[in-house]
Order: sequence, then C-alpha cells, then structure tokens
Amino acid sequence: MINSLENNPPHQVVIVGGGFGGLYTAKALAKANVNVTLIDKRNFHLFQPLLYQVATGTLSPADISSPLRSVLSKSKNTKVLLGEVSDIDPEVQQVMVGDEAVPYDTLIIATGAKHSYFGKDNWEKFAPGLKTVEDAIEMRRRIFTAFEAAEQETDPEKRRAWLTFVIVGGGPTGVELAGAIAELAYQTLKEDFRNIDTSETRILLLEGMDRILPPFAPELSQAAEASLKKLGVVVQTKTLVTNIENDIVTLKQGDEVKEIASKTILWAAGVKASPIGKVLAERTGVECDRAGRVIVEPDLSIKKHSNIFVIGDLANFSHQNGKPLPGVAPVAKQEGEYVAGLIQQRLKGNTLPQFAYIDRGSLAMISQNSAVADLGFIKLKGFFAWLFWLLIHIYFLIEFDNKLVVIIQWAWNYITRNRGARLITGQESLPLTVTSDSSYYTATENRQPINV
Amino acid sequence: MINSLENNPPHQVVIVGGGFGGLYTAKALAKANVNVTLIDKRNFHLFQPLLYQVATGTLSPADISSPLRSVLSKSKNTKVLLGEVSDIDPEVQQVMVGDEAVPYDTLIIATGAKHSYFGKDNWEKFAPGLKTVEDAIEMRRRIFTAFEAAEQETDPEKRRAWLTFVIVGGGPTGVELAGAIAELAYQTLKEDFRNIDTSETRILLLEGMDRILPPFAPELSQAAEASLKKLGVVVQTKTLVTNIENDIVTLKQGDEVKEIASKTILWAAGVKASPIGKVLAERTGVECDRAGRVIVEPDLSIKKHSNIFVIGDLANFSHQNGKPLPGVAPVAKQEGEYVAGLIQQRLKGNTLPQFAYIDRGSLAMISQNSAVADLGFIKLKGFFAWLFWLLIHIYFLIEFDNKLVVIIQWAWNYITRNRGARLITGQESLPLTVTSDSSYYTATENRQPINV
Repeated sequence: MINSLENNPPHQVVIVGGGFGGLYTAKALAKANVNVTLIDKRNFHLFQPLLYQVATGTLSPADISSPLRSVLSKSKNTKVLLGEVSDIDPEVQQVMVGDEAVPYDTLIIATGAKHSYFGKDNWEKFAPGLKTVEDAIEMRRRIFTAFEAAEQETDPEKRRAWLTFVIVGGGPTGVELAGAIAELAYQTLKEDFRNIDTSETRILLLEGMDRILPPFAPELSQAAEASLKKLGVVVQTKTLVTNIENDIVTLKQGDEVKEIASKTILWAAGVKASPIGKVLAERTGVECDRAGRVIVEPDLSIKKHSNIFVIGDLANFSHQNGKPLPGVAPVAKQEGEYVAGLIQQRLKGNTLPQFAYIDRGSLAMISQNSAVADLGFIKLKGFFAWLFWLLIHIYFLIEFDNKLVVIIQWAWNYITRNRGARLITGQESLPLTVTSDSSYYTATENRQPINV
Repeated sequence: MINSLENNPPHQVVIVGGGFGGLYTAKALAKANVNVTLIDKRNFHLFQPLLYQVATGTLSPADISSPLRSVLSKSKNTKVLLGEVSDIDPEVQQVMVGDEAVPYDTLIIATGAKHSYFGKDNWEKFAPGLKTVEDAIEMRRRIFTAFEAAEQETDPEKRRAWLTFVIVGGGPTGVELAGAIAELAYQTLKEDFRNIDTSETRILLLEGMDRILPPFAPELSQAAEASLKKLGVVVQTKTLVTNIENDIVTLKQGDEVKEIASKTILWAAGVKASPIGKVLAERTGVECDRAGRVIVEPDLSIKKHSNIFVIGDLANFSHQNGKPLPGVAPVAKQEGEYVAGLIQQRLKGNTLPQFAYIDRGSLAMISQNSAVADLGFIKLKGFFAWLFWLLIHIYFLIEFDNKLVVIIQWAWNYITRNRGARLITGQESLPLTVTSDSSYYTATENRQPINV
C-alpha cells in the first residue's frame, strides 16, 4: 500500500543490503518525503571490484570500504541498522532482524550474490572465493604464505606445488587476480627470497568457455589473453574443473583429463544468490532461477507484490534482451536509482516506464599499463584502457568517500612497482608452522562465524 | 666463538624478532662481512606505537606495517625466515624453528614483551590488550560494535553499559586510546546515529599510580590529564582494578570499592616478556626479572654466553641508572645498532665500551592538536608537542617504508575530522546478532590460533 502524503505517517522504505544497489537507492531517497531504514550485516559498503587488490597485497580493506553511517549521516530521513534479515512477512509488511520486527511500506532487497561451486560445496575449503573482506584477507594469506612455504621447502616437487597457482574462472575477477599474482611473482617479489626464484612460479587461469572474459567483444578477449600470456600466465580455455581435493586440481579438456598439483587454488567462477532470495520465494511464491536469483517484473518489483523490489545481483531482470542483466555494479546502481525514482513518482500518484539499463561498457584490468575496455561504440586495450579503468574506478571510489589515499597508493605502487599491503594476518596465521605437508585446510575447517 | 675473517665460513648472525630491535640490528649489519638470518613469526615489521590508531579506525594495519622481505631485500647477506623459535641450544649453537635447526655464531633475541594481567589471565577475554594487528582489529570491532549495539538497545541501563568505555592503564597507550575514543564519540560519530546521542558516552581511564604518564615529568602528566578532561575523558588515578567479570569492572580507590558496568573494557597495563625469555633462562641459567625480562650484561649479552644478546622489550638493562630501561622503540633501536657495531668490532678483534642509552625524550598524543613531549631540556605541550609528535612518527614510519599514504590519511582526517578505517571485520563479526544480553566473550573464547 502506498500512503498518500497528507494525513498518514511518512512512507517507510526498508532497504536490505548496503552494496551498490541498496546504497544508491538510499542516496537517491535522501531528500524524498519518506523514512528510510538501511539494513546491512556489515557496518560498511564494500567496493567489491577492487577486492582482488586487497587479496594481492596492494590495498587494505579500509581503502575500498566506506562506513555506511558516514555515507548516510547527512541523510536525516535515513537510519542505518546493523543486522541480518532472517525473515520477511509480506502480509504484515515487516522484516525480522534477530528478534526485532522492522515494518515497511516499500521493501527493497539488494543482498547480492556470491560465487558458486556448481554443487560441489566441499571444494570451498580447498579453493576460496572472493566476496567479502575476510575472503580477501584469507586469499592474501594463502598467496603470500605459499611463497614463504616454498622458501623453506626442500623437496622440489612440493616446492613446485607451492609455486603453482590455479585460478578457476576466466571472468573479470579471475583475469584480474591472475594478472596481479603474475606481477607479484615476476616483479614485486623478485629480490625478496634467497632459496627460491619466484620467476619459476606457474600461474594457471582456467576457463570453461572458449575464451576468457566471455561477456566482452571477442577481440578484447583475445587482447586480454595475449596480455596475460605476455605477463607469464598460462591461460587454458575450454577447460572444466572436475575435482578439487587436497592439493590436486583435476581438469577436463575435451577428452583429456589432467591433474595439477597446486597448494593455492583460487575460485572466481559461478553465481549463487544470497539465501534471502529463497526466503522471499517461500513467503511470496515468486520464482527464482537456477542460481537462486529472483525473477523480477519490468519495474523491478516482484509478482503480486508491487511494493517489494529486488535489485542488483540478486535480481534476474530479463525483460530487456531476453537474458538476465549481468551482476555488475553499474546495473545495481541504475536499478537502485530507478526504484528510488519510482517510489517518489508513486507517492505523487504517478508511475514510470519500465526499467531500461544503459550499458556503458565493461572493463577489466590485466596489469599495470594494460587493460581492456568494451564501451560498445569503441573498444580500448592496453595503456588507454588502463587509464580509463583507473579514472572510472577513482570516480566510483570517491562517490561515497574520499579515497585520495587509494590514488596515492596506486601512484606509489606504479612508480615503485611495490605493494605495500602484503601482510599475512588473521587468526589462521598464528602460529605459523610450515611443514612439508602443510595445508590450509585445517585452518578453513576451523573458521566458524561466531555470534557477538 | 668468533670466526676470524680469512679461512672460515662467514660469521652467522641469527636475529630472532623483526621489531624495532631486530630490524635495526639487521639493517646495521647489511654491509658487514657476516651472514644474517632474521626469524619472525610474522612476515612484516609492525610499528606498534600507532596500533591504537588501527584500533580506533584511523589507519589500516598495512599503513603501519612493512613487509620484512621488502625492507631487507637489498641486504644481500640477509635472509628472512618466517617461523617461530621453539628452542635454543647454546652448546651446539643453534635455534629450533619447527623441525629445522638454524645454526648461529652470534644470536640476538629481540622478541619483545606484551601486556600483563598481573596474574589474572582470565581477565584477558573481558579486556583485550593491544599488541598485534589481530588485537587491534578485535579492539576496533568491539569499539564500533558498542555504538551499534547501543543504537539498538532499548533498555536504558544496558545502553549505558554499551556507551561506557573503560581503559585500564594510564601510560602512553592508555592515554592515546582514551583520547582517540573521545574524539570518536564526541566528534566523528556525532551525526551517525539516530537513536543514541554519542555525546552521552562515558570514557574512564584508570591508573594505579598517582598520575597518568608516570615516566613523564609531573607537569606534563598534569597537562595531559587536563587535555583529556577537556576532551571529556574521566581520569581516575590511584585506582586499582581488583576484578573484571562479564560486564563489571571492580575497582579500589583507597578504601572505597566501586563497580562500573561497561561492555567495552580495554587493557593497556602491565609488562610480560615473550615466552622465549623463559626458554633462554632454562637453557643458559640466565636470570629473569619478575616480568620475565632477561637480565643482560653491560654489553647486552647474557652471563656466560658472550655471543648471545638480548635487546628491546625482552631485555632488562639496569646498568645505566639502576632501574631497567623502558620498553620503548628508541631503546630497542639504539640497542640493536650497538650490538651490530659490537659484532663488527669483535670480528676485527676489538670491542666497544658498555652500552649507554641516549634518552631523547618521551611523547604521547592526546588528540588532534594536543600532545605532551618531555625532551629533557625542554617540555612541550599542546599544539607544538602534537606537531613534534607528528614529525617524529612520520620519520620513523618512512624509515623502512614509504608511508606517504599515512601522511595523506592523517592530513585528510585532520581536515575532515573523519576516520576512514572504522570497519567491523574479522571472523567474530559474522554473523552479527546483537541481542540485549550480547557479549563479546563467546567470540574470544572461540578464537583459536590454527596451524597452517
């Protein structure tokens, strides 16, 4: 029900999720005649596109995060609630956060998605993904510990396994990780070890389709692959991972089956919607796709509940070109701004035409001085793509917060070819006992999220 | 045994600990005709004096850490070993790192000290200290979670407990923490919450002696106390903590006993030497003081083992003025440089006069624009002390690494009165369920260090 302005209490908008979708919705409603409650289980907005730079030791988590309260402190109609939504009641129109019921007139769910192991969830402890700050710190720990372990390893076969990195998934995340680890191994760490020569590091990027960066134009996929190869990365397309167990990756290329011994396997593939999608489906009957994403209407609401919206990576919006919009930041941003506009129009008794995404292009960075950018009308590669990548990321970073430090950090790294944030930290890093049969798995199995 | 230069393999120097003492020793031996092995259980040098700024959300861990390999990469005679020394064999002259034996001709132990609970180690889970990066992240989590919990707390008594911070220990760490939390509560977070008014926060600084900053000149202790009071901190001297349990701090002031309800108790008191001091005592018969610090000779070696040195916070050097030199960075630095010089002199068949510390003064920051500096011949307070504090810290920070980002970050915070690094992260932060009887203790009890 939409409340009219005059005699009723202000319209209550509840937004679940402070990522690109949720935060842009909140910002767009800052001056609207509504009350907004933004709920997130973290106290900060995370700029996920740069998580791989935390994982490879260039940036710190705080460099790519903005405290939600700080971003929204000037929005006097907005309050931030730190908590996790466990249930939705579309009849009473409220969400449950712990014991607390939070009532809404309009509900926007923007809790995103993570990577998927295609049903093989037991692979997760062998091959961590990159979704949260903690994931990035753990990935960073594994990457840098691998070099330390190789330095102390006397058995040549085991040393080779420590110096072999396998990245599963040839989308932007996998490509950027591969490029960053190559720069690390072949440039940054070159002088830092005495027993090993880091230039012996092998980095494999595995992709199931016939080219990396499948959503990009084919010539850019080619350019990206050439850049990676020039950096020293081994790119293997049409390659499926059939098993990951302890330190062995089993892969299938056509009829051929191969095994690779690697102590550091990183996962950058698949899509799995956040669990709240399922809750919503149970409570409202809305349908979800195979990845768990919620099928939305042309105006981003869900069937039979015009006051419940789903945006961002959690949404499956296929009304524009027959297949779902990709789970990228600009889509979430535009969807959030659209819904904010729609809410305000409805309050005046109006509506808006259906949502239409304006695709301004895709970007992926390979390494310093080299990126690919598909802007539709123009395709860039190499140095100019990289410059464009820089400017776009800086723009997004300073949108919510002033990340001058990131710019300085990048400038410094560029000049010195160094990486300042390559700490091995976290509970699993103490004490460090690297023995010849060391593995990361005990550590991950013991990682339990704990209630405060 | 000291090897002469001509016919024997190079002199093997093993340094345990990459803090101020160990790292300055290694740097000073970079061009000496010795082989150096630096062993640390972390892969980075940590600038501990600024840990409190990580704990209060101004800086990130990487801003105050330098990767050891990077610092020492140009020292071709130096290798870095990531590991923990579990045993020392002074007969064979080797240290044990896991299964590996690392032989030495000269051994320097610089593993430092941490805070002490005066025998009440069970207080640790209620009142964490500030020694490692993980400590700082955990402290940060508690500080920022307290405000979040208060925001959701409906019971006024419990809310008051969430908005009460108790810091135990009136030395530089405690003073700096108190000042930083006061700035946070009364300035930075003022506009960020809707249900609570953070200016209602109470911050108590408890000190057992008759004044805070006891090593400083009395008029500076007074100035610091006045600054803190002006900021809104409640300073209680001649106050001993007799118990900490769940959310209650029991204290004794003269004959009076009081109880304070606080959900966030931070420990910044006491000294306890690292465990390797005990190992050394068992293996060599050297004596330790009550805090476990190793009693050293006038040349920083230990009795009956002229080729084993102990420096930094682990050492008790009382030959200069009858009581041990304080556990501060400049002492460790000068001791490290002295031992490096002594090793080189011995190789030529010479020696050096006994170690003499040059005390250039003490510094403590209260808040932006306010600090105290005791430089002996001159005492500074207020703005000039703060400027001096800044310059000294910048000098130390860039000594090993270029921390331009820290300078930019500080400059930005100063201008905007904001803090960019106030994330709640770590395993214990997920999922966050703040209920009215929430406590941090379950989380800490489950924090197990895990082997890689």
